[in-house]
Amino acid sequence: MQNFDFLSPTKIIFGRGVHSRVGAETAQIGNTILVHYGSDRVKTSGLLDEVIASVRDAGVDVVLLGGVKPNPRLELIREGIELCRRKGVDGILCVGGGSVIDSAKGIAAGVPYTGDVWDFYTAAAEPDGALPIGVVLTIPAAGSEASPGSVVTREKEQQKFFFNSDLVRPRFAILNPELTFTLPQYQTAAGVTDIMSHIMERYFTLEENVDLTDRLCEATLRTVIHNVPKALATPEDYAARAEIMWAGTIAHNDLLSTGRIGDWSSHNIEHELSAQYDVTHGAGLAVIFPAWMKHVYTRDLERFVQFAVRVWDVDYRAHDMEGVALEGIRRLTEFFSRIGMPTTLAELGVTDRRYDEMAKQALRFGPLGNFKLEAPDVVRIYELAEG
Amino acid sequence: MQNFDFLSPTKIIFGRGVHSRVGAETAQIGNTILVHYGSDRVKTSGLLDEVIASVRDAGVDVVLLGGVKPNPRLELIREGIELCRRKGVDGILCVGGGSVIDSAKGIAAGVPYTGDVWDFYTAAAEPDGALPIGVVLTIPAAGSEASPGSVVTREKEQQKFFFNSDLVRPRFAILNPELTFTLPQYQTAAGVTDIMSHIMERYFTLEENVDLTDRLCEATLRTVIHNVPKALATPEDYAARAEIMWAGTIAHNDLLSTGRIGDWSSHNIEHELSAQYDVTHGAGLAVIFPAWMKHVYTRDLERFVQFAVRVWDVDYRAHDMEGVALEGIRRLTEFFSRIGMPTTLAELGVTDRRYDEMAKQALRFGPLGNFKLEAPDVVRIYELAEG
Repeated sequence: MQNFDFLSPTKIIFGRGVHSRVGAETAQIGNTILVHYGSDRVKTSGLLDEVIASVRDAGVDVVLLGGVKPNPRLELIREGIELCRRKGVDGILCVGGGSVIDSAKGIAAGVPYTGDVWDFYTAAAEPDGALPIGVVLTIPAAGSEASPGSVVTREKEQQKFFFNSDLVRPRFAILNPELTFTLPQYQTAAGVTDIMSHIMERYFTLEENVDLTDRLCEATLRTVIHNVPKALATPEDYAARAEIMWAGTIAHNDLLSTGRIGDWSSHNIEHELSAQYDVTHGAGLAVIFPAWMKHVYTRDLERFVQFAVRVWDVDYRAHDMEGVALEGIRRLTEFFSRIGMPTTLAELGVTDRRYDEMAKQALRFGPLGNFKLEAPDVVRIYELAEG
Repeated sequence: MQNFDFLSPTKIIFGRGVHSRVGAETAQIGNTILVHYGSDRVKTSGLLDEVIASVRDAGVDVVLLGGVKPNPRLELIREGIELCRRKGVDGILCVGGGSVIDSAKGIAAGVPYTGDVWDFYTAAAEPDGALPIGVVLTIPAAGSEASPGSVVTREKEQQKFFFNSDLVRPRFAILNPELTFTLPQYQTAAGVTDIMSHIMERYFTLEENVDLTDRLCEATLRTVIHNVPKALATPEDYAARAEIMWAGTIAHNDLLSTGRIGDWSSHNIEHELSAQYDVTHGAGLAVIFPAWMKHVYTRDLERFVQFAVRVWDVDYRAHDMEGVALEGIRRLTEFFSRIGMPTTLAELGVTDRRYDEMAKQALRFGPLGNFKLEAPDVVRIYELAEG
């Protein structure tokens, strides 16, 4: 087990009806608040109006900025920074999912910074201050509601970049599973794929003696695997929605990576798909993750066997470790397919095989993950992702 | 799943050698610090001197208060409050285990309070402020390093009382598993029993649809069960000590009770043993917990079956739920015995059968736990604890 620091200070407010507390919580983080949002769903459902009313009732001035799209854009962050400075905004309230929160994190860190916010994403600078952030979560997926990370796309260059800073971890996150009843099936499934990937990327470590976090990862994965089909079959199944929503936060608040060094190759390899083809991040992961596994499983066979046995209940068989490991990967792929995710690049609409170019982008900071994947590895993973 | 708020803001600093960071961390919480400790082990090992030197090097003034005993005493808390006021102390650094931290929490909340600190323990008042607390943990057991609770004994009256307040959750906790290498076997085992009890008291809920926290509880229990025999066999097994130490914090920082209503009957019933006979809390729990289980298991049979199957790998058998549940309880008892814990009242030296009196004390705030145990139940549990 590696030495670690762990601090997850986000206050979680979880359950039925809890978004009615947004006004009181928001008043704790500022007097003038940017309410940041994206999808039409928050408007048509009436949620946005309800949130704004609650915040105003608490005596807080509201500045609005909508328009966040999946794979959030740098341009909107720059616009948000200017808006916050002009209006004297002192906190940001997100109403939405990971894209809105990631966009807010860029704005929050950018407001007190004298340079260009893009510096954080290229690692040219680190935030040394940030506006406080609150969240009303509508999509369990990115885990951004309790994470230090922000991922954005620079549109023109088709580049996806991220930064991590504890300064942008939200102060509070309001998680009402009822708000996810109206999520389209595809978004529910893509969100769950993102959640599972966050766990699996922590799980596939080369570190030994990480029993507790291994088992916590397996516990969270099994919970999601059990509950997603229920939520898809009955969108208003509160219990299933609640398990998924809480699992999504736990998956990415860093508890599951304490003492471990994870392997984020799949996220990096997928980010090139999202950036270049604008595919849904979770759907891209459903294609890339099993392909990554097929490429690397022999390099850490015992862990892939443990994954198969403990997460997917594959029967352990003597003298067939590879067979056991492959059966685990097969069951993961089958699960993604069963919940309506694509499992090949073609199903994502990616057929022009620009693998060399994407591999080059994915490797711009050096070899990927614990297996130190190089360009031929990444190209091979894209090829395996053809199915 | 119940609605819940969850906030665990303690910064965890975990690993080999990390107690060297105590000076820098302590300087964040005050200029004049009470260093609070108990056992001789921290003095003879040189740890206390090392900590004091680090804190002074960071420019912090130190006031010393030792003398904390297991089952911490109210009188010392009152002394600490006076001392802190007199010396202008603005933070408390604990060097020790749960008893030291619980004592510090009483002091921390008592300093700014105008009444008697005992009011918090009798629920006559709630803290509305507290000095910040830091911890260098030497015993994984109570989980007090990230919990809001403080338990103390009022000596004359042989009463054990507690209060909970988020205001006394430590700001930081330094967890170096190496510091537990010198723990006596009995204290290691008693600490683990306390850890397991914290998890099981959360686990035995009547709440349904708590898949994720069920599985997180099982994960943490299995980790402890696997690693304790290793730590007992090889006291300097860093990996085993590390798993136990991190599990001890997770067991009691409230993550595992999110959305559930646990059942703290065993803790309450054991507290009367600790208060009246001054037995080690963990050892008392090893005797009481299985007795409580034997008394109540038929009232929530399916959960006790799940515990047997998922935690103890008992084979599920059709048409024998009771047999499966009892086998789980048997394996738990056998485990306690194997790690050197007593499993009967006689082994604790408790033979005078003052059960009516203890039951009355245990029930002073009303019936206990989810099964609303009354005096005859509690007496029966003490009888079952005779073995």
